[in-house]
Amino acid sequence: MEITFELGYALDTFYFLICGALVMWMAAGFAMLEAGLVRAKNTTEILTKNIALFAIACTMYMVCGYGIMYGGSDWVPFLGGITGDGATGVAEDPATYAPSADFFFQVVFVATAMSIVSGAVAERMKLWAFLAFAVVMTGFIYPMEGAWTWGGEAVFGLYSLGDLGFSDFAGSGIVHMAGAAAALAGVLILGARKGKYTADGKINAIPGANLPLATLGTFILWMGWFGFNGGSVLATATVESANAVAIVFMNTNAAAAGGTVAALVVARILFGKADLTMALNGALAGLVAITAEPSTPTPLQATLFGALGGILVVFSIVTLDKLKIDDPVGAISVHGVVGLLGLILVPFTNDGSTMVGQLVGALTIFLWVFVVSLVVWLALKAIIGIRVSDEEEFDGVDVSECGLEAYPDFTGGRS
Amino acid sequence: MEITFELGYALDTFYFLICGALVMWMAAGFAMLEAGLVRAKNTTEILTKNIALFAIACTMYMVCGYGIMYGGSDWVPFLGGITGDGATGVAEDPATYAPSADFFFQVVFVATAMSIVSGAVAERMKLWAFLAFAVVMTGFIYPMEGAWTWGGEAVFGLYSLGDLGFSDFAGSGIVHMAGAAAALAGVLILGARKGKYTADGKINAIPGANLPLATLGTFILWMGWFGFNGGSVLATATVESANAVAIVFMNTNAAAAGGTVAALVVARILFGKADLTMALNGALAGLVAITAEPSTPTPLQATLFGALGGILVVFSIVTLDKLKIDDPVGAISVHGVVGLLGLILVPFTNDGSTMVGQLVGALTIFLWVFVVSLVVWLALKAIIGIRVSDEEEFDGVDVSECGLEAYPDFTGGRS
Amino acid sequence: MEITFELGYALDTFYFLICGALVMWMAAGFAMLEAGLVRAKNTTEILTKNIALFAIACTMYMVCGYGIMYGGSDWVPFLGGITGDGATGVAEDPATYAPSADFFFQVVFVATAMSIVSGAVAERMKLWAFLAFAVVMTGFIYPMEGAWTWGGEAVFGLYSLGDLGFSDFAGSGIVHMAGAAAALAGVLILGARKGKYTADGKINAIPGANLPLATLGTFILWMGWFGFNGGSVLATATVESANAVAIVFMNTNAAAAGGTVAALVVARILFGKADLTMALNGALAGLVAITAEPSTPTPLQATLFGALGGILVVFSIVTLDKLKIDDPVGAISVHGVVGLLGLILVPFTNDGSTMVGQLVGALTIFLWVFVVSLVVWLALKAIIGIRVSDEEEFDGVDVSECGLEAYPDFTGGRS
Repeated sequence: MEITFELGYALDTFYFLICGALVMWMAAGFAMLEAGLVRAKNTTEILTKNIALFAIACTMYMVCGYGIMYGGSDWVPFLGGITGDGATGVAEDPATYAPSADFFFQVVFVATAMSIVSGAVAERMKLWAFLAFAVVMTGFIYPMEGAWTWGGEAVFGLYSLGDLGFSDFAGSGIVHMAGAAAALAGVLILGARKGKYTADGKINAIPGANLPLATLGTFILWMGWFGFNGGSVLATATVESANAVAIVFMNTNAAAAGGTVAALVVARILFGKADLTMALNGALAGLVAITAEPSTPTPLQATLFGALGGILVVFSIVTLDKLKIDDPVGAISVHGVVGLLGLILVPFTNDGSTMVGQLVGALTIFLWVFVVSLVVWLALKAIIGIRVSDEEEFDGVDVSECGLEAYPDFTGGRS
Repeated sequence: MEITFELGYALDTFYFLICGALVMWMAAGFAMLEAGLVRAKNTTEILTKNIALFAIACTMYMVCGYGIMYGGSDWVPFLGGITGDGATGVAEDPATYAPSADFFFQVVFVATAMSIVSGAVAERMKLWAFLAFAVVMTGFIYPMEGAWTWGGEAVFGLYSLGDLGFSDFAGSGIVHMAGAAAALAGVLILGARKGKYTADGKINAIPGANLPLATLGTFILWMGWFGFNGGSVLATATVESANAVAIVFMNTNAAAAGGTVAALVVARILFGKADLTMALNGALAGLVAITAEPSTPTPLQATLFGALGGILVVFSIVTLDKLKIDDPVGAISVHGVVGLLGLILVPFTNDGSTMVGQLVGALTIFLWVFVVSLVVWLALKAIIGIRVSDEEEFDGVDVSECGLEAYPDFTGGRS
Repeated sequence: MEITFELGYALDTFYFLICGALVMWMAAGFAMLEAGLVRAKNTTEILTKNIALFAIACTMYMVCGYGIMYGGSDWVPFLGGITGDGATGVAEDPATYAPSADFFFQVVFVATAMSIVSGAVAERMKLWAFLAFAVVMTGFIYPMEGAWTWGGEAVFGLYSLGDLGFSDFAGSGIVHMAGAAAALAGVLILGARKGKYTADGKINAIPGANLPLATLGTFILWMGWFGFNGGSVLATATVESANAVAIVFMNTNAAAAGGTVAALVVARILFGKADLTMALNGALAGLVAITAEPSTPTPLQATLFGALGGILVVFSIVTLDKLKIDDPVGAISVHGVVGLLGLILVPFTNDGSTMVGQLVGALTIFLWVFVVSLVVWLALKAIIGIRVSDEEEFDGVDVSECGLEAYPDFTGGRS
């Protein structure tokens, strides 16, 4: 082989691996964010969910998910199609980067989608029911819609989203809205936490126990998102692709900044205070909003798109609460509502996409994930139950599910 | 284009982006460090300040700061000079890396300078006054002195720091001492926290609420500093530049290690205990000390320079307390006093710099940032006020400014 | 020089530096993991130990450790053999990456070995005795066995582990089991914490104070391990080495996932609960198990090897408790017992290794580190004492050793 080919192959591979490591790091971000936003008595359980779902996602995607999503009709389980000498076993063209680096980068995306679910169902779902759902979500539900979008296959052989002009650069819809759709299905079946909505129509705020953790989680996600969006250029070893990656990093950062400032100002106007949790959700909303297309906007546009996300997320969180859809961490608003916004914004800067394609794509992803998730949640409810008992919920799920308090020296039975 | 040119361009761009992501990560480090060193009742507010200032810095530097600092007389707002095809729009020579990667790397430096301020004014400043200052600091004050130094322009058209032999590799003075100068101006106008210095001359220690967070923040900063200093070589795709980057990583680590050990030992001698907060400040002092020139010392020299920083920071913190300059996190000592030390150490290993240049440069940066900051703080004081009321300070600024306690399940009104 | 040589040199150097930064980040992981698993009253001290040991490791390895390990008989102290122009001063062949990048990557490994010790002796050892041990461990004990393995020298000039077919890719034995051997020696001399094992044979659980920190630490270690194992390929600028690095990243992740799931399930079966601390130890056990050979297994094998580690670690922790070997964080099980498993698994997928070589290597490393550590611990016990007084242990070592509580606003004297 040409040495310049080798160098390009090596650089693209290293770029995938570093971006993948950053996306893996997002798992820590979700864990800290969610652990910070629940009450002390439900913290051990949400931590357990987060590390376990990541492990399950990695395993299931290796067992069958990656094959379903990218392997076409010839897929082999257990990554059988990836061989150590750089051949893919399936693709006809020789790879321009290591196939296992591609798998590594893709596998951490599945975990992201699943991480979104854990926060929304926090503080009242049975741990093992959740993990059972994670098996289906990461091994089947996500890979199916992934095959129709990034995998390039026709939806049930009927229509091609790519041909319709659907474009979702790094997954505002494919990853984030999909995770939110699964979460919404779970929340609707699960119901709200005890005491969240009272009989006389009052909505009680249930503050998170550890805001430094929630802030740390947001910073981790912000950092990891450079890998999430930046790696989605899928190459960096040429001037053209390097420029694209650089623009994606710049715009991803700009959108997060815009979302933070916008949400902080809107919250100040609505609530009279500089609400930290809204600022954090604003940062994440900015990131979700730009994820569908971070390569074509100018930095100013990226800031404004992020700000739109930051504004929308505040109103969405308030609205969902009015609808009595109880999402302790705001995941459905951040990833679902703003994920949809992200898809809709694409055609404004990317000529290769169409508004029809975006809407059909959004609807396809949402319906698929929502309906199948609903079926799975209902099945789990019937078979093993998905909600803890009232007493367990009152005492906190940490003791009943994990047998360990998260902060035994501090809470002294008060949490 | 030659494929070898493309590969070099791609590698340098990727290097900038990864180093920039590491510097962005320092924002999380400052947030955790400061959140760990304030009392529980002021934690939400310092977290809000930290994420908001980062967002403001990114936005203002895009709006005008980058243009002021590097654009010369032709600068265009909103990064108008950066185009997606890799042209800078301003520079005559073709770029050897993506212009947007350069912006991304530079923008996170502004945020670092601003992060230094938030800790020093903690526990008593009004949130929105602080954010208003952040707008001016990141959009104007820092970019102006940045233009005189890294931007290569003459100071008010009068004298050139570069011609005088001023050298500040990654910003001991330009970033760290500048942040400390703005902080000092703020602290002097703001005054000390209630109860810090009593009428009879006693100095009360006000311990931080969460030392694991402060330690985490220090480790994050240590890690991020590899990007801060390592990226400041500004290239890595040749043997010469790669060697320089590697030496910078090695020396940055050595200096942090030297600072940690030295501060721990000095604190043990002075106070009789292994004071963790001094060890953390020692690590940061070692990092600040080496930042002005991490590429020319030997590893042993780097360790010793770091140790000098670690020793100095302990005495500086004690001295500032005696002067009743109340800096809750020690930021003025770590970044200001040791930042000056870093500048002074440069000529000992770098022949291209002069002691005169270092002193004139330090004085220029300090006077500019301190005086203009003083004016801005005074203006903010006159217009909207910068200090919370005594009652708000007693109750903690979290409730009055943010409406949210940071640890509602733990403090039970005791914090 | 050829420009393609320069690009390869630059890419390999950058890869070493980034992997090294990830391994440095593991120091934060150990600090958070251990801080989360001890009681609140012993948290400041374990944080102090962790940052100080990292600093000592970096300094001692620069002073003499690196020279002992890789310098042969001609080694020069203070990295005298590394020069800034890319020459090694010792090696005859010109380097294919920056020598200082190699040092940077190696130095963070020493710190990892030492970090393992701090957790096992937590909550009752004198801080300065521990730091004195760190000086000997990082400057002498580890470099000696490192010289016999990665350094390629014969063991006391008697036999060559390499010739016997010993293979330890990234250090299941050389780093992890070595750290555990030093820890075991310390724990045996130090004895158990007061109240851990009662006279009537009961074993009391002493729960950790902050499980979110412990979880964060595990995620940090998981992320940092990509650098630990991935960097151990020692090159990435060719198709062959890039493929190897990618496989190592993929398998490292798979093994951690397998370990997490397996430990969680085993703990559920044994204890009836989803024990978070076992899941965390399972993740780490999976990582340790794959570290001896992450490049030859298939992803499925890597998952299974990790799962074996995850199962073994649960039984090992239970067994050590029955033997009254008090290891507050499970470090001896995770790094020692599973480290040995990792060595034993190598010949199943790597033809270049032999079971005899693995066993002789494991025995050599264990005996050397354990015996010399035992001597050093006994000497320290005789000279300055290694255990705090009963009263200090009861009150917590934070106040007696560091003079600072870790969480003064929360514990209110209760911890």
